[in-house]
Amino acid sequence: MFSEELTIDTRGQDIVDLSREVAAFCDGRGDGLVCVFAPHATAGLALIEVGSGSEDDLREALGRLLPRDDRWRHRHGSEGHGADHVLPAFVSPSLVIPVLAGRPALGTWQSIVLVDTNPDNPRRTVRCSFLAG
Amino acid sequence: MFSEELTIDTRGQDIVDLSREVAAFCDGRGDGLVCVFAPHATAGLALIEVGSGSEDDLREALGRLLPRDDRWRHRHGSEGHGADHVLPAFVSPSLVIPVLAGRPALGTWQSIVLVDTNPDNPRRTVRCSFLAG
Amino acid sequence: MFSEELTIDTRGQDIVDLSREVAAFCDGRGDGLVCVFAPHATAGLALIEVGSGSEDDLREALGRLLPRDDRWRHRHGSEGHGADHVLPAFVSPSLVIPVLAGRPALGTWQSIVLVDTNPDNPRRTVRCSFLAG
Repeated sequence: MFSEELTIDTRGQDIVDLSREVAAFCDGRGDGLVCVFAPHATAGLALIEVGSGSEDDLREALGRLLPRDDRWRHRHGSEGHGADHVLPAFVSPSLVIPVLAGRPALGTWQSIVLVDTNPDNPRRTVRCSFLAG
Repeated sequence: MFSEELTIDTRGQDIVDLSREVAAFCDGRGDGLVCVFAPHATAGLALIEVGSGSEDDLREALGRLLPRDDRWRHRHGSEGHGADHVLPAFVSPSLVIPVLAGRPALGTWQSIVLVDTNPDNPRRTVRCSFLAG
Repeated sequence: MFSEELTIDTRGQDIVDLSREVAAFCDGRGDGLVCVFAPHATAGLALIEVGSGSEDDLREALGRLLPRDDRWRHRHGSEGHGADHVLPAFVSPSLVIPVLAGRPALGTWQSIVLVDTNPDNPRRTVRCSFLAG
């Protein structure tokens, strides 16, 4: 298995497109499965379209469903940070994508994004692991 | 890796049982993992029980949590279509299932369903990829 | 592929830490991917931090988003049980984790938990499958 930890500079962004980095990792590896994995307790990974407003829509949905107020038992860091700790139960930090001839077999409108609503960590790591088939 | 794109005629249904198609794909392949992957930006895959009301229950939950109204920034197609673009962050389009002796090792009540609330696409593709172990 | 079904005595708990069991299953197996899979229609798997309040926070979120009232079509067992049948669409019962040198490559604060809000099943099974790379 080829496995590599990528360092992501989120620059404080909460939704970060990783498609290019994952494609570069898969390049030349043939057919198989790539597991993209965020080893963090307050981040998830998603496949969405970017650039047409869905990032804002996802922000709205997350803020409404997991509000950043004082309801949470898990308290530390910025207000509402407990919500970030529940996020990975709904937006999983593990994602498996088929790879064909060294390219992730994504649909035309799919991008791989890191969803990280915790503003306190400008650097994140994401592990890519390729299992050849 | 054996990888094949299945064409699904959803007939406008939003929850489509794929269990038979995935089982047929796995048949005869021995032990391994099957990755079921929907290469679409407005669809997800889920493992639920079908035929006892949970399809309607999932519809109700999705309609309530991601309402089909004019709140969404991503606008085109039918009203509320922006909700469809947020869906895959919560209902992932990638699903990995263990396969034993050529059969998906599902629980008795689990079915593999495509969740596709976008009524504008009666034909969808789902890629099955089998990695032998 | 090494595949094994673990029996989990949940003792009626709804969020059960499986990290130790999954680590024991992976021990000595080298590099690869482990698929953790709950073959149940009313359970999911999540990677969250445990012991700091997030279990209660996840309970609150699930109870609010999928209320245990009489709205559900799927009716049997205890009141609100229909919610348990919708849960796996949002908290998937399948989780893939990279394994390095026989150890799940989890982040410091990540634990693997079974999320099983159905109080009627004190015994559950979870299948671990390891694909070497």
